Amino acid sequence: MSTYVTEIPVRFRDIDAMGHVNNAVYATYLEQARTAYVRDVLGADLSSIPTVLASLSLEFRRPVLLEDGSVTVEIDVPELGESSVPMTYEIRAEDGVVAEAESVQVAVDDEGSSRPISEDHRTAIESYHGL
Amino acid sequence: MSTYVTEIPVRFRDIDAMGHVNNAVYATYLEQARTAYVRDVLGADLSSIPTVLASLSLEFRRPVLLEDGSVTVEIDVPELGESSVPMTYEIRAEDGVVAEAESVQVAVDDEGSSRPISEDHRTAIESYHGL
Amino acid sequence: MSTYVTEIPVRFRDIDAMGHVNNAVYATYLEQARTAYVRDVLGADLSSIPTVLASLSLEFRRPVLLEDGSVTVEIDVPELGESSVPMTYEIRAEDGVVAEAESVQVAVDDEGSSRPISEDHRTAIESYHGL
Amino acid sequence: MSTYVTEIPVRFRDIDAMGHVNNAVYATYLEQARTAYVRDVLGADLSSIPTVLASLSLEFRRPVLLEDGSVTVEIDVPELGESSVPMTYEIRAEDGVVAEAESVQVAVDDEGSSRPISEDHRTAIESYHGL
Repeated sequence: MSTYVTEIPVRFRDIDAMGHVNNAVYATYLEQARTAYVRDVLGADLSSIPTVLASLSLEFRRPVLLEDGSVTVEIDVPELGESSVPMTYEIRAEDGVVAEAESVQVAVDDEGSSRPISEDHRTAIESYHGL
Repeated sequence: MSTYVTEIPVRFRDIDAMGHVNNAVYATYLEQARTAYVRDVLGADLSSIPTVLASLSLEFRRPVLLEDGSVTVEIDVPELGESSVPMTYEIRAEDGVVAEAESVQVAVDDEGSSRPISEDHRTAIESYHGL
Repeated sequence: MSTYVTEIPVRFRDIDAMGHVNNAVYATYLEQARTAYVRDVLGADLSSIPTVLASLSLEFRRPVLLEDGSVTVEIDVPELGESSVPMTYEIRAEDGVVAEAESVQVAVDDEGSSRPISEDHRTAIESYHGL
Repeated sequence: MSTYVTEIPVRFRDIDAMGHVNNAVYATYLEQARTAYVRDVLGADLSSIPTVLASLSLEFRRPVLLEDGSVTVEIDVPELGESSVPMTYEIRAEDGVVAEAESVQVAVDDEGSSRPISEDHRTAIESYHGL
């Protein structure tokens, strides 16, 4: 059972007027981790898979600073639905967890209605995470 | 009992490779609404109030397009804690709700520990929302 | 002879760790002004016109702060080339010019080679600016 | 005589509705390269040195795609002024130059007036680039 892990360098532009990484940028870090996950686990390009983000939640543990240099994002998939791919995340800096998050992606057809996850993707995800 | 409402123009830069407003930008819209709220309800500058964002959750109802032109963000404060200010949001385009959200802000002292909300701010928020 | 003028509200997220609008955001303000220009002068959608940005230059006069509230962007087109649309800009806050800029857009075909500006667009731009 | 080189991963969020890296993001790549330069060549933190960006110009050679994975930014300092640090840049993807750029930074005092570059920084920059 694997957890997917990717590293994301912090940019100067990620910092806001408060002097730490802006809250919206955490959503960008999660998206960047999903981009890497889709590339590495599904062998695909995030924008080529007809999927919508249905929900996203974040709990912020401590501010991230430019001096942190980079964060790692860990992705787990606790279970697969018929159409939905829930993900849980930990965002970590060198000294520990800085945020936890959850998201739900839903596979959609051309009209935007939910559709079953493709068998290829279901197999790849289940196999990766040992579901 | 008032709901705070502010309008935010959609920028071309808010759109991502999928052709609609990027998920992280919703967090920026909420932040921009809080900036306006703090200015209008508390008469203050968001970055001058020692507060941290503890959590944020978003449910996405339908994509927002550049053609939508702008969104309105509605903020309610259901109740005040000792140190925490929970907010609920509706993000709307012309034809209805595009996302719902919740966040919790926590008042902090210089060391980052939680502190009671100032009496002035408590009174202003309770009075505005009829709590 | 008209100058095109549009107003852009400053967002909290536009501010960086230095406490003023980040330099890259000026490019976003110019792009947002071009988006409005294309909509109002050409009756079109920026992403639907096959055009590439060939060059961009900015001179920064003074920092823009969140308290400035908004900036206005003024666009002039000094002359039209066969394929290229040069633009000059002034970005202004309430008390004067905060930045000056120039850009060159080039009309391209499906292979990305330059093509003549369409007659409709040429006529609309020349007519708007009195060229 | 050294050229400073740093690598910057392309993020999904850097891509805009046209399907390639947004023009404003090039300014962010240059800024990120300056952040690394200041850390590595001056041993300092970009936001701790009282400096303003006076001008910035970009020539775009070809679009950058998410599939490019990352870009490298090369920084040269052709000469030092009394107060000003001009920089020239090449942004490269695997197959060659995607953009060229120039910027001028000016050292400022607490009132925002130009001041001489500190001797330490002058020596470090001249030594690094063999000026």
